[in-house]
Amino acid sequence: MPTIECVPNISEGRRTEVINSLATTLRAVPGLRVLDVQSDATHNRSVFTLAGTAEAMAAGIPKLFEGAIAAIDLRTQKGEHPRLGAVDVVPFIPIEGVTMAACVALAKAIAAEVAQRFAIPVYLYEEAAANPARKNLEDIRRGEFEGLSAKMAQPAWAPDFGPAAPHPSAGASVIGARMPLIAYNINLATDRLEVAKKIAGAIRMSSGGLRFVKAMGIPLADRGIVQVSINLTNYEKTPIYRVFEMVKREAARYGVQVLESEIVGLVPSAALTQTAEYFLQLEGFTAGQILENKLAE
Amino acid sequence: MPTIECVPNISEGRRTEVINSLATTLRAVPGLRVLDVQSDATHNRSVFTLAGTAEAMAAGIPKLFEGAIAAIDLRTQKGEHPRLGAVDVVPFIPIEGVTMAACVALAKAIAAEVAQRFAIPVYLYEEAAANPARKNLEDIRRGEFEGLSAKMAQPAWAPDFGPAAPHPSAGASVIGARMPLIAYNINLATDRLEVAKKIAGAIRMSSGGLRFVKAMGIPLADRGIVQVSINLTNYEKTPIYRVFEMVKREAARYGVQVLESEIVGLVPSAALTQTAEYFLQLEGFTAGQILENKLAE
Repeated sequence: MPTIECVPNISEGRRTEVINSLATTLRAVPGLRVLDVQSDATHNRSVFTLAGTAEAMAAGIPKLFEGAIAAIDLRTQKGEHPRLGAVDVVPFIPIEGVTMAACVALAKAIAAEVAQRFAIPVYLYEEAAANPARKNLEDIRRGEFEGLSAKMAQPAWAPDFGPAAPHPSAGASVIGARMPLIAYNINLATDRLEVAKKIAGAIRMSSGGLRFVKAMGIPLADRGIVQVSINLTNYEKTPIYRVFEMVKREAARYGVQVLESEIVGLVPSAALTQTAEYFLQLEGFTAGQILENKLAE
Repeated sequence: MPTIECVPNISEGRRTEVINSLATTLRAVPGLRVLDVQSDATHNRSVFTLAGTAEAMAAGIPKLFEGAIAAIDLRTQKGEHPRLGAVDVVPFIPIEGVTMAACVALAKAIAAEVAQRFAIPVYLYEEAAANPARKNLEDIRRGEFEGLSAKMAQPAWAPDFGPAAPHPSAGASVIGARMPLIAYNINLATDRLEVAKKIAGAIRMSSGGLRFVKAMGIPLADRGIVQVSINLTNYEKTPIYRVFEMVKREAARYGVQVLESEIVGLVPSAALTQTAEYFLQLEGFTAGQILENKLAE
Protein backbone atom coordinates (compact mmCIF):
# COMPACT_ATOMS: atom_id res chain seq x y z
CA MET A 1 0.00 0.00 0.00
CA PRO A 2 1.40 3.44 -0.88
CA THR A 3 2.48 5.11 2.36
CA ILE A 4 3.03 8.77 3.17
CA GLU A 5 4.38 9.94 6.50
CA CYS A 6 3.17 13.23 7.92
CA VAL A 7 4.69 14.97 10.98
CA PRO A 8 2.44 17.89 11.93
CA ASN A 9 3.72 20.18 14.73
CA ILE A 10 1.10 22.02 16.77
CA SER A 11 1.70 24.87 19.25
CA GLU A 12 0.33 23.09 22.31
CA GLY A 13 2.44 20.89 24.57
CA ARG A 14 0.86 21.40 27.96
CA ARG A 15 -2.90 20.80 27.93
CA THR A 16 -3.09 17.02 27.61
CA GLU A 17 -6.87 17.12 27.07
CA VAL A 18 -6.36 19.19 23.89
CA ILE A 19 -3.52 16.96 22.63
CA ASN A 20 -5.40 13.73 23.41
CA SER A 21 -8.55 15.00 21.76
CA LEU A 22 -6.63 15.82 18.54
CA ALA A 23 -4.97 12.39 18.60
CA THR A 24 -8.38 10.74 19.05
CA THR A 25 -9.75 12.72 16.10
CA LEU A 26 -6.83 11.58 13.91
CA ARG A 27 -7.10 7.94 15.01
CA ALA A 28 -10.75 7.90 13.95
CA VAL A 29 -9.84 8.70 10.32
CA PRO A 30 -10.04 5.49 8.20
CA GLY A 31 -6.60 4.48 6.90
CA LEU A 32 -4.72 7.03 9.01
CA ARG A 33 -2.33 5.66 11.66
CA VAL A 34 -0.99 7.67 14.58
CA LEU A 35 2.46 6.14 15.12
CA ASP A 36 3.66 8.54 17.78
CA VAL A 37 2.71 11.67 19.76
CA GLN A 38 5.49 13.61 21.49
CA SER A 39 4.64 16.63 23.66
CA ASP A 40 7.08 19.04 25.26
CA ALA A 41 5.81 21.39 27.98
CA THR A 42 8.83 23.72 27.86
CA HIS A 43 8.54 24.09 24.10
CA ASN A 44 4.73 24.09 24.46
CA ARG A 45 4.58 22.03 21.30
CA SER A 46 3.43 18.56 20.19
CA VAL A 47 4.64 16.48 17.26
CA PHE A 48 2.36 13.83 15.74
CA THR A 49 3.83 11.11 13.54
CA LEU A 50 1.17 9.88 11.11
CA ALA A 51 1.22 7.29 8.33
CA GLY A 52 -1.29 6.53 5.62
CA THR A 53 -2.38 7.05 2.04
CA ALA A 54 -2.88 10.42 0.35
CA GLU A 55 -6.63 9.96 0.78
CA ALA A 56 -6.27 9.38 4.53
CA MET A 57 -4.08 12.50 4.82
CA ALA A 58 -6.57 14.59 2.84
CA ALA A 59 -9.32 13.41 5.20
CA GLY A 60 -7.37 13.77 8.46
CA ILE A 61 -5.23 16.92 8.22
CA PRO A 62 -8.17 19.36 7.80
CA LYS A 63 -9.71 17.79 10.94
CA LEU A 64 -6.44 18.49 12.78
CA PHE A 65 -6.62 22.14 11.66
CA GLU A 66 -10.25 22.39 12.75
CA GLY A 67 -9.52 21.08 16.25
CA ALA A 68 -6.23 22.94 16.77
CA ILE A 69 -7.56 26.31 15.54
CA ALA A 70 -10.55 25.99 17.88
CA ALA A 71 -8.37 25.13 20.90
CA ILE A 72 -5.16 27.16 20.50
CA ASP A 73 -4.85 30.96 20.74
CA LEU A 74 -1.38 32.23 19.89
CA ARG A 75 -2.12 35.58 21.50
CA THR A 76 -1.76 33.86 24.87
CA GLN A 77 0.31 30.75 23.98
CA LYS A 78 3.95 30.97 25.15
CA GLY A 79 6.77 28.45 24.81
CA GLU A 80 10.47 28.14 24.02
CA HIS A 81 9.97 26.83 20.49
CA PRO A 82 9.54 29.39 17.69
CA ARG A 83 6.09 29.21 16.04
CA LEU A 84 3.97 31.01 13.49
CA GLY A 85 0.63 29.27 13.91
CA ALA A 86 -1.64 26.94 15.89
CA VAL A 87 -0.86 24.20 13.37
CA ASP A 88 2.70 25.39 12.90
CA VAL A 89 4.19 23.12 10.26
CA VAL A 90 2.94 20.10 8.28
CA PRO A 91 5.49 18.15 6.21
CA PHE A 92 4.50 15.22 3.97
CA ILE A 93 7.20 12.60 3.44
CA PRO A 94 7.21 9.89 0.74
CA ILE A 95 7.86 6.48 2.34
CA GLU A 96 6.74 3.65 0.08
CA GLY A 97 5.22 3.49 -3.38
CA VAL A 98 4.78 7.27 -3.46
CA THR A 99 6.81 9.90 -5.30
CA MET A 100 7.99 13.24 -3.94
CA ALA A 101 5.89 14.85 -6.71
CA ALA A 102 2.77 13.19 -5.27
CA CYS A 103 3.60 14.52 -1.80
CA VAL A 104 4.10 18.02 -3.23
CA ALA A 105 0.73 17.81 -4.98
CA LEU A 106 -0.90 16.60 -1.75
CA ALA A 107 0.70 19.46 0.25
CA LYS A 108 -0.65 22.02 -2.25
CA ALA A 109 -4.14 20.54 -2.30
CA ILE A 110 -4.40 20.42 1.49
CA ALA A 111 -2.88 23.92 1.78
CA ALA A 112 -5.52 25.30 -0.59
CA GLU A 113 -8.32 23.56 1.26
CA VAL A 114 -7.41 24.55 4.84
CA ALA A 115 -6.61 28.14 3.75
CA GLN A 116 -10.10 28.48 2.35
CA ARG A 117 -12.03 26.57 5.03
CA PHE A 118 -10.36 28.20 8.03
CA ALA A 119 -9.41 31.61 6.53
CA ILE A 120 -5.78 31.03 7.46
CA PRO A 121 -2.72 32.09 5.41
CA VAL A 122 -0.55 29.15 4.32
CA TYR A 123 3.07 29.11 3.12
CA LEU A 124 4.45 26.23 1.07
CA TYR A 125 7.98 25.08 2.05
CA GLU A 126 10.81 22.69 1.18
CA GLU A 127 10.05 20.64 -1.96
CA ALA A 128 6.63 22.31 -2.27
CA ALA A 129 8.06 25.84 -2.04
CA ALA A 130 7.01 28.24 -4.79
CA ASN A 131 10.39 30.02 -4.68
CA PRO A 132 13.83 29.54 -3.06
CA ALA A 133 13.18 32.16 -0.34
CA ARG A 134 10.50 29.85 1.07
CA LYS A 135 12.44 26.61 0.99
CA ASN A 136 13.73 26.82 4.55
CA LEU A 137 11.24 26.71 7.40
CA GLU A 138 13.47 28.99 9.51
CA ASP A 139 13.21 31.81 6.94
CA ILE A 140 9.41 31.62 6.82
CA ARG A 141 9.08 31.43 10.59
CA ARG A 142 11.54 34.25 11.38
CA GLY A 143 9.73 36.93 13.44
CA GLU A 144 7.26 34.35 14.74
CA PHE A 145 3.55 34.93 15.36
CA GLU A 146 4.22 38.26 17.06
CA GLY A 147 5.98 39.64 13.98
CA LEU A 148 3.64 38.08 11.44
CA SER A 149 1.39 41.09 10.73
CA ALA A 150 4.37 43.30 9.86
CA LYS A 151 6.04 40.52 7.84
CA MET A 152 2.90 39.82 5.80
CA ALA A 153 2.57 43.53 4.98
CA GLN A 154 5.65 43.08 2.74
CA PRO A 155 4.72 41.95 -0.78
CA ALA A 156 7.53 39.35 -0.65
CA TRP A 157 5.70 37.56 2.16
CA ALA A 158 2.23 37.30 0.61
CA PRO A 159 1.07 33.76 1.46
CA ASP A 160 0.76 30.99 -1.14
CA PHE A 161 -2.86 30.43 -0.13
CA GLY A 162 -5.45 32.23 2.02
CA PRO A 163 -5.89 35.78 3.33
CA ALA A 164 -3.15 38.44 3.14
CA ALA A 165 -3.12 38.92 6.92
CA PRO A 166 -2.70 36.52 9.87
CA HIS A 167 -5.59 34.59 11.36
CA PRO A 168 -6.28 36.51 14.63
CA SER A 169 -5.72 33.55 16.98
CA ALA A 170 -4.17 30.86 14.76
CA GLY A 171 -1.54 32.89 12.87
CA ALA A 172 -0.35 31.14 9.71
CA SER A 173 0.67 27.59 8.77
CA VAL A 174 3.58 26.15 6.81
CA ILE A 175 2.81 23.09 4.70
CA GLY A 176 5.16 21.20 2.41
CA ALA A 177 6.95 18.03 1.39
CA ARG A 178 10.42 16.78 2.25
CA MET A 179 12.55 13.67 2.38
CA PRO A 180 12.79 11.68 5.62
CA LEU A 181 15.39 13.29 7.87
CA ILE A 182 18.09 11.11 9.42
CA ALA A 183 19.66 12.19 12.72
CA TYR A 184 23.15 10.71 12.63
CA ASN A 185 26.05 11.23 15.06
CA ILE A 186 29.68 10.23 14.73
CA ASN A 187 31.72 10.00 17.94
CA LEU A 188 35.46 10.64 17.79
CA ALA A 189 38.11 8.96 19.95
CA THR A 190 39.35 12.30 21.27
CA ASP A 191 38.35 15.08 23.65
CA ARG A 192 39.55 17.81 21.24
CA LEU A 193 36.39 19.80 20.54
CA GLU A 194 38.11 21.88 17.83
CA VAL A 195 38.56 18.67 15.77
CA ALA A 196 34.80 17.91 15.88
CA LYS A 197 34.04 21.53 14.96
CA LYS A 198 36.49 21.58 12.05
CA ILE A 199 35.08 18.31 10.70
CA ALA A 200 31.50 19.58 11.06
CA GLY A 201 32.51 22.68 9.12
CA ALA A 202 34.13 20.56 6.40
CA ILE A 203 31.11 18.32 5.79
CA ARG A 204 28.11 20.69 6.10
CA MET A 205 26.71 22.57 3.11
CA SER A 206 26.63 25.96 4.79
CA SER A 207 30.42 26.12 4.91
CA GLY A 208 31.22 24.37 1.62
CA GLY A 209 30.49 20.69 2.36
CA LEU A 210 27.90 18.21 1.19
CA ARG A 211 24.57 19.52 -0.14
CA PHE A 212 22.19 17.78 2.30
CA VAL A 213 24.26 17.86 5.50
CA LYS A 214 23.74 20.04 8.57
CA ALA A 215 26.41 19.44 11.24
CA MET A 216 27.97 20.78 14.39
CA GLY A 217 30.77 19.69 16.72
CA ILE A 218 29.77 19.19 20.34
CA PRO A 219 31.45 17.80 23.49
CA LEU A 220 30.14 14.63 25.20
CA ALA A 221 31.57 15.82 28.50
CA ASP A 222 30.54 12.81 30.60
CA ARG A 223 32.37 10.45 28.25
CA GLY A 224 35.39 12.69 27.66
CA ILE A 225 34.93 12.57 23.88
CA VAL A 226 33.53 14.81 21.14
CA GLN A 227 30.79 14.27 18.57
CA VAL A 228 30.02 15.40 15.05
CA SER A 229 26.22 15.76 15.29
CA ILE A 230 24.59 15.52 11.85
CA ASN A 231 21.20 16.00 10.22
CA LEU A 232 20.96 14.34 6.82
CA THR A 233 18.11 15.99 4.94
CA ASN A 234 18.23 13.85 1.80
CA TYR A 235 19.90 10.45 2.19
CA GLU A 236 19.27 9.53 -1.45
CA LYS A 237 21.44 12.36 -2.75
CA THR A 238 23.86 12.59 0.18
CA PRO A 239 24.10 8.98 1.44
CA ILE A 240 25.09 8.09 5.02
CA TYR A 241 28.16 6.15 3.91
CA ARG A 242 29.59 9.14 2.05
CA VAL A 243 29.24 11.31 5.15
CA PHE A 244 30.83 8.61 7.32
CA GLU A 245 33.78 8.12 4.97
CA MET A 246 34.33 11.88 4.71
CA VAL A 247 34.34 12.29 8.50
CA LYS A 248 36.79 9.38 8.81
CA ARG A 249 39.17 10.95 6.27
CA GLU A 250 38.99 14.40 7.83
CA ALA A 251 39.54 12.93 11.31
CA ALA A 252 42.65 11.09 10.09
CA ARG A 253 44.12 14.45 9.06
CA TYR A 254 44.12 15.36 12.81
CA GLY A 255 45.39 11.95 13.90
CA VAL A 256 41.95 11.09 15.27
CA GLN A 257 39.91 7.89 14.80
CA VAL A 258 36.18 7.35 14.56
CA LEU A 259 35.09 5.64 17.79
CA GLU A 260 31.55 4.76 16.70
CA SER A 261 28.47 6.24 15.06
CA GLU A 262 24.79 6.22 15.99
CA ILE A 263 21.43 6.72 14.32
CA VAL A 264 18.97 8.60 16.53
CA GLY A 265 15.35 7.60 16.02
CA LEU A 266 14.07 6.15 12.77
CA VAL A 267 15.90 5.45 9.51
CA PRO A 268 14.44 4.30 6.18
CA SER A 269 15.49 0.78 5.25
CA ALA A 270 16.82 2.07 1.91
CA ALA A 271 19.47 4.16 3.71
CA LEU A 272 20.93 1.00 5.24
CA THR A 273 20.63 -0.96 2.01
CA GLN A 274 22.52 1.69 0.04
CA THR A 275 25.25 1.55 2.71
CA ALA A 276 25.59 -2.23 2.38
CA GLU A 277 25.62 -1.89 -1.43
CA TYR A 278 28.42 0.66 -1.26
CA PHE A 279 30.76 -1.19 1.07
CA LEU A 280 30.13 -4.62 -0.48
CA GLN A 281 30.45 -3.15 -4.01
CA LEU A 282 27.12 -4.81 -4.78
CA GLU A 283 26.11 -4.71 -8.44
CA GLY A 284 22.56 -5.04 -9.76
CA PHE A 285 20.90 -5.27 -6.37
CA THR A 286 17.21 -4.34 -6.15
CA ALA A 287 14.89 -3.81 -3.18
CA GLY A 288 12.79 -6.69 -4.57
CA GLN A 289 15.56 -9.05 -3.42
CA ILE A 290 14.97 -8.23 0.23
CA LEU A 291 13.04 -11.19 1.63
CA GLU A 292 10.77 -9.05 3.81
CA ASN A 293 9.75 -6.95 0.78
CA LYS A 294 8.89 -10.12 -1.13
CA LEU A 295 6.79 -11.32 1.80
CA ALA A 296 5.03 -7.93 2.01
CA GLU A 297 4.03 -7.98 -1.68
CA MET B 1 2.53 -11.91 12.17
CA PRO B 2 5.06 -14.67 12.88
CA THR B 3 6.35 -15.91 9.54
CA ILE B 4 8.02 -19.18 8.63
CA GLU B 5 9.38 -19.88 5.17
CA CYS B 6 9.24 -23.41 3.80
CA VAL B 7 10.98 -24.58 0.61
CA PRO B 8 9.79 -28.11 -0.21
CA ASN B 9 11.51 -29.85 -3.13
CA ILE B 10 9.51 -32.49 -4.99
CA SER B 11 10.81 -35.00 -7.54
CA GLU B 12 8.69 -33.82 -10.47
CA GLY B 13 9.75 -31.06 -12.83
CA ARG B 14 8.17 -32.11 -16.12
CA ARG B 15 4.44 -32.83 -15.76
CA THR B 16 3.04 -29.32 -15.36
CA GLU B 17 -0.43 -30.66 -14.53
CA VAL B 18 0.99 -32.39 -11.44
CA ILE B 19 3.01 -29.33 -10.38
CA ASN B 20 0.12 -26.92 -10.94
CA SER B 21 -2.30 -29.15 -9.07
CA LEU B 22 0.04 -29.25 -6.03
CA ALA B 23 0.45 -25.45 -6.16
CA THR B 24 -3.34 -25.03 -6.31
CA THR B 25 -3.73 -27.33 -3.29
CA LEU B 26 -1.19 -25.26 -1.32
CA ARG B 27 -2.73 -21.91 -2.35
CA ALA B 28 -6.10 -23.08 -0.99
CA VAL B 29 -4.69 -23.51 2.56
CA PRO B 30 -5.76 -20.52 4.73
CA GLY B 31 -2.77 -18.39 5.76
CA LEU B 32 -0.34 -20.20 3.46
CA ARG B 33 1.23 -18.15 0.64
CA VAL B 34 2.93 -19.65 -2.41
CA LEU B 35 5.62 -17.05 -3.20
CA ASP B 36 7.31 -18.94 -5.99
CA VAL B 37 7.30 -22.22 -7.93
CA GLN B 38 10.42 -23.17 -9.92
CA SER B 39 10.47 -26.32 -12.05
CA ASP B 40 13.45 -27.80 -13.89
CA ALA B 41 12.81 -30.46 -16.53
CA THR B 42 16.44 -31.65 -16.70
CA HIS B 43 16.60 -32.05 -12.93
CA ASN B 44 12.98 -33.33 -12.97
CA ARG B 45 12.41 -31.39 -9.78
CA SER B 46 10.26 -28.51 -8.53
CA VAL B 47 10.94 -26.11 -5.67
CA PHE B 48 8.03 -24.35 -3.93
CA THR B 49 8.69 -21.26 -1.80
CA LEU B 50 5.98 -20.95 0.85
CA ALA B 51 5.40 -18.46 3.66
CA GLY B 52 3.00 -18.53 6.58
CA THR B 53 2.44 -19.37 10.22
CA ALA B 54 3.24 -22.69 11.90
CA GLU B 55 -0.48 -23.51 11.77
CA ALA B 56 -0.62 -22.88 8.02
CA MET B 57 2.44 -25.10 7.50
CA ALA B 58 0.96 -27.87 9.65
CA ALA B 59 -2.21 -27.72 7.53
CA GLY B 60 -0.51 -27.43 4.12
CA ILE B 61 2.56 -29.68 4.13
CA PRO B 62 0.64 -32.96 4.76
CA LYS B 63 -1.58 -32.04 1.76
CA LEU B 64 1.57 -31.65 -0.35
CA PHE B 65 2.71 -35.13 0.74
CA GLU B 66 -0.71 -36.59 -0.06
CA GLY B 67 -0.74 -35.14 -3.59
CA ALA B 68 2.92 -35.82 -4.39
CA ILE B 69 2.90 -39.40 -3.13
CA ALA B 70 -0.21 -40.13 -5.22
CA ALA B 71 1.32 -38.63 -8.39
CA ILE B 72 5.04 -39.47 -8.29
CA ASP B 73 6.58 -42.95 -8.61
CA LEU B 74 10.33 -42.98 -8.06
CA ARG B 75 10.62 -46.43 -9.65
CA THR B 76 10.12 -44.72 -13.02
CA GLN B 77 11.08 -41.09 -12.26
CA LYS B 78 14.48 -40.09 -13.72
CA GLY B 79 16.33 -36.77 -13.55
CA GLU B 80 19.76 -35.23 -13.07
CA HIS B 81 19.14 -34.12 -9.50
CA PRO B 82 19.83 -36.65 -6.72
CA ARG B 83 16.66 -37.62 -4.80
CA LEU B 84 15.48 -39.95 -2.09
CA GLY B 85 11.72 -39.46 -2.24
CA ALA B 86 8.65 -38.05 -3.97
CA VAL B 87 8.67 -35.17 -1.47
CA ASP B 88 12.44 -35.09 -1.32
CA VAL B 89 13.29 -32.42 1.23
CA VAL B 90 11.27 -29.98 3.35
CA PRO B 91 13.20 -27.26 5.24
CA PHE B 92 11.49 -24.81 7.60
CA ILE B 93 13.19 -21.41 7.94
CA PRO B 94 12.53 -18.80 10.68
CA ILE B 95 11.86 -15.39 9.08
CA GLU B 96 10.07 -13.07 11.48
CA GLY B 97 8.87 -13.38 15.05
CA VAL B 98 9.73 -17.10 15.10
CA THR B 99 12.66 -18.88 16.72
CA MET B 100 14.75 -21.66 15.22
CA ALA B 101 13.56 -23.83 18.13
CA ALA B 102 9.95 -23.32 16.98
CA CYS B 103 10.90 -24.35 13.43
CA VAL B 104 12.64 -27.47 14.76
CA ALA B 105 9.53 -28.36 16.79
CA LEU B 106 7.35 -27.82 13.72
CA ALA B 107 9.62 -29.99 11.56
CA LYS B 108 9.43 -32.83 14.10
CA ALA B 109 5.64 -32.60 14.48
CA ILE B 110 5.06 -32.63 10.72
CA ALA B 111 7.63 -35.42 10.25
CA ALA B 112 5.80 -37.58 12.82
CA GLU B 113 2.43 -36.90 11.21
CA VAL B 114 3.32 -37.57 7.56
CA ALA B 115 5.36 -40.68 8.53
CA GLN B 116 2.31 -42.14 10.20
CA ARG B 117 -0.35 -41.04 7.70
CA PHE B 118 1.51 -42.04 4.56
CA ALA B 119 3.65 -44.92 5.92
CA ILE B 120 6.80 -43.19 4.71
CA PRO B 121 10.20 -43.13 6.49
CA VAL B 122 11.34 -39.62 7.46
CA TYR B 123 14.84 -38.37 8.35
CA LEU B 124 15.34 -35.15 10.33
CA TYR B 125 18.21 -32.92 9.09
CA GLU B 126 20.12 -29.68 9.73
CA GLU B 127 19.00 -27.97 12.96
CA ALA B 128 16.37 -30.67 13.53
CA ALA B 129 18.87 -33.54 13.14
CA ALA B 130 18.89 -36.12 15.94
CA ASN B 131 22.66 -36.68 15.52
CA PRO B 132 25.60 -35.10 13.62
CA ALA B 133 25.63 -37.83 10.93
CA ARG B 134 22.22 -36.57 9.77
CA LYS B 135 22.97 -32.85 9.74
CA ASN B 136 23.96 -32.68 6.08
CA LEU B 137 21.36 -33.44 3.44
CA GLU B 138 24.03 -34.85 1.13
CA ASP B 139 24.95 -37.57 3.67
CA ILE B 140 21.33 -38.65 4.11
CA ARG B 141 20.66 -38.62 0.38
CA ARG B 142 23.82 -40.47 -0.65
CA GLY B 143 22.85 -43.63 -2.61
CA GLU B 144 19.56 -42.04 -3.68
CA PHE B 145 16.22 -43.83 -4.01
CA GLU B 146 17.83 -46.75 -5.81
CA GLY B 147 20.18 -47.43 -2.88
CA LEU B 148 17.68 -46.71 -0.13
CA SER B 149 16.63 -50.28 0.70
CA ALA B 150 20.23 -51.35 1.27
CA LYS B 151 21.03 -48.17 3.23
CA MET B 152 18.01 -48.54 5.52
CA ALA B 153 19.01 -52.11 6.29
CA GLN B 154 21.94 -50.64 8.27
CA PRO B 155 21.00 -49.86 11.90
CA ALA B 156 22.74 -46.45 11.58
CA TRP B 157 20.19 -45.42 8.97
CA ALA B 158 16.99 -46.31 10.80
CA PRO B 159 14.63 -43.40 10.10
CA ASP B 160 13.64 -40.84 12.76
CA PHE B 161 9.96 -41.55 12.05
CA GLY B 162 7.98 -44.13 10.10
CA PRO B 163 8.63 -47.63 8.76
CA ALA B 164 12.10 -49.22 8.69
CA ALA B 165 11.96 -49.73 4.90
CA PRO B 166 11.34 -47.36 1.96
CA HIS B 167 7.83 -46.53 0.75
CA PRO B 168 7.57 -48.60 -2.50
CA SER B 169 6.92 -45.64 -4.84
CA ALA B 170 7.68 -42.55 -2.71
CA GLY B 171 10.97 -43.58 -1.05
CA ALA B 172 11.76 -41.48 2.01
CA SER B 173 11.61 -37.82 2.94
CA VAL B 174 14.03 -35.45 4.68
CA ILE B 175 12.46 -32.80 6.90
CA GLY B 176 14.23 -30.19 9.02
CA ALA B 177 14.93 -26.60 9.92
CA ARG B 178 17.71 -24.27 8.79
CA MET B 179 18.67 -20.62 8.50
CA PRO B 180 17.94 -18.72 5.28
CA LEU B 181 20.68 -19.41 2.76
CA ILE B 182 22.32 -16.49 0.95
CA ALA B 183 23.81 -17.03 -2.50
CA TYR B 184 26.61 -14.48 -2.73
CA ASN B 185 29.24 -14.06 -5.46
CA ILE B 186 32.36 -11.91 -5.48
CA ASN B 187 33.86 -11.07 -8.88
CA LEU B 188 37.59 -10.43 -9.13
CA ALA B 189 39.30 -8.01 -11.53
CA THR B 190 41.43 -10.76 -13.02
CA ASP B 191 41.18 -13.76 -15.35
CA ARG B 192 43.44 -15.89 -13.13
CA LEU B 193 41.22 -18.81 -12.14
CA GLU B 194 43.79 -20.16 -9.67
CA VAL B 195 43.37 -16.96 -7.60
CA ALA B 196 39.58 -17.46 -7.30
CA LYS B 197 40.14 -21.12 -6.40
CA LYS B 198 42.75 -20.31 -3.76
CA ILE B 199 40.51 -17.67 -2.19
CA ALA B 200 37.51 -20.06 -2.21
CA GLY B 201 39.70 -22.63 -0.44
CA ALA B 202 40.78 -20.05 2.13
CA ILE B 203 37.27 -18.93 3.11
CA ARG B 204 35.24 -22.16 3.06
CA MET B 205 34.82 -24.35 6.12
CA SER B 206 35.70 -27.60 4.39
CA SER B 207 39.31 -26.48 3.90
CA GLY B 208 39.81 -24.53 7.12
CA GLY B 209 37.84 -21.31 6.53
CA LEU B 210 34.71 -19.82 8.00
CA ARG B 211 32.16 -22.14 9.64
CA PHE B 212 29.09 -21.31 7.48
CA VAL B 213 30.74 -20.76 4.09
CA LYS B 214 30.66 -23.04 1.07
CA ALA B 215 32.69 -21.63 -1.84
CA MET B 216 34.26 -22.43 -5.17
CA GLY B 217 36.30 -20.51 -7.74
CA ILE B 218 34.83 -20.43 -11.26
CA PRO B 219 35.61 -18.62 -14.52
CA LEU B 220 33.16 -16.09 -16.04
CA ALA B 221 34.56 -16.78 -19.49
CA ASP B 222 32.38 -14.33 -21.42
CA ARG B 223 33.54 -11.45 -19.21
CA GLY B 224 37.18 -12.54 -18.98
CA ILE B 225 37.10 -12.53 -15.17
CA VAL B 226 36.81 -15.06 -12.34
CA GLN B 227 34.34 -15.42 -9.50
CA VAL B 228 34.35 -16.70 -5.94
CA SER B 229 30.89 -18.28 -5.79
CA ILE B 230 29.63 -18.54 -2.21
CA ASN B 231 26.78 -20.10 -0.24
CA LEU B 232 26.36 -18.54 3.19
CA THR B 233 24.41 -21.02 5.31
CA ASN B 234 24.13 -18.89 8.48
CA TYR B 235 24.54 -15.15 7.97
CA GLU B 236 24.02 -14.43 11.68
CA LYS B 237 27.10 -16.38 12.70
CA THR B 238 29.17 -15.83 9.54
CA PRO B 239 28.09 -12.37 8.30
CA ILE B 240 28.34 -11.25 4.67
CA TYR B 241 30.70 -8.38 5.49
CA ARG B 242 33.23 -10.68 7.14
CA VAL B 243 33.29 -12.91 4.07
CA PHE B 244 33.66 -9.87 1.79
CA GLU B 245 36.52 -8.39 3.83
CA MET B 246 38.30 -11.75 3.96
CA VAL B 247 38.04 -12.21 0.19
CA LYS B 248 39.35 -8.65 -0.33
CA ARG B 249 42.37 -9.31 1.92
CA GLU B 250 43.15 -12.66 0.32
CA ALA B 251 42.85 -11.14 -3.16
CA ALA B 252 45.28 -8.36 -2.24
CA ARG B 253 47.87 -11.03 -1.44
CA TYR B 254 47.78 -11.94 -5.17
CA GLY B 255 47.74 -8.32 -6.32
CA VAL B 256 44.08 -8.67 -7.31
CA GLN B 257 41.18 -6.31 -6.57
CA VAL B 258 37.52 -7.05 -5.95
CA LEU B 259 35.60 -5.84 -9.01
CA GLU B 260 32.10 -6.16 -7.54
CA SER B 261 29.88 -8.55 -5.63
CA GLU B 262 26.31 -9.77 -6.16
CA ILE B 263 23.52 -11.32 -4.17
CA VAL B 264 21.60 -13.95 -6.16
CA GLY B 265 17.92 -14.18 -5.27
CA LEU B 266 16.56 -13.18 -1.87
CA VAL B 267 18.40 -11.87 1.19
CA PRO B 268 16.99 -11.20 4.68
CA SER B 269 16.90 -7.51 5.55
CA ALA B 270 18.92 -8.24 8.72
CA ALA B 271 21.90 -9.38 6.63
CA LEU B 272 22.08 -5.94 5.00
CA THR B 273 21.48 -4.12 8.29
CA GLN B 274 24.33 -5.97 10.00
CA THR B 275 26.58 -4.98 7.08
CA ALA B 276 25.70 -1.28 7.44
CA GLU B 277 26.22 -1.54 11.22
CA TYR B 278 29.68 -3.01 10.73
CA PHE B 279 31.03 -0.55 8.20
CA LEU B 280 29.48 2.52 9.86
CA GLN B 281 30.64 1.31 13.31
CA LEU B 282 27.01 1.78 14.44
CA GLU B 283 26.48 1.44 18.19
CA GLY B 284 23.16 0.59 19.88
CA PHE B 285 21.19 0.20 16.66
CA THR B 286 18.01 -1.91 16.81
CA ALA B 287 15.70 -3.22 14.07
CA GLY B 288 12.93 -1.17 15.72
CA GLN B 289 14.63 1.96 14.34
CA ILE B 290 13.95 0.92 10.75
CA LEU B 291 11.04 3.05 9.60
CA GLU B 292 9.40 0.24 7.63
CA ASN B 293 9.43 -2.02 10.70
CA LYS B 294 7.76 0.73 12.73
CA LEU B 295 5.12 1.09 10.00
CA ALA B 296 4.55 -2.67 9.93
CA GLU B 297 3.94 -2.88 13.71
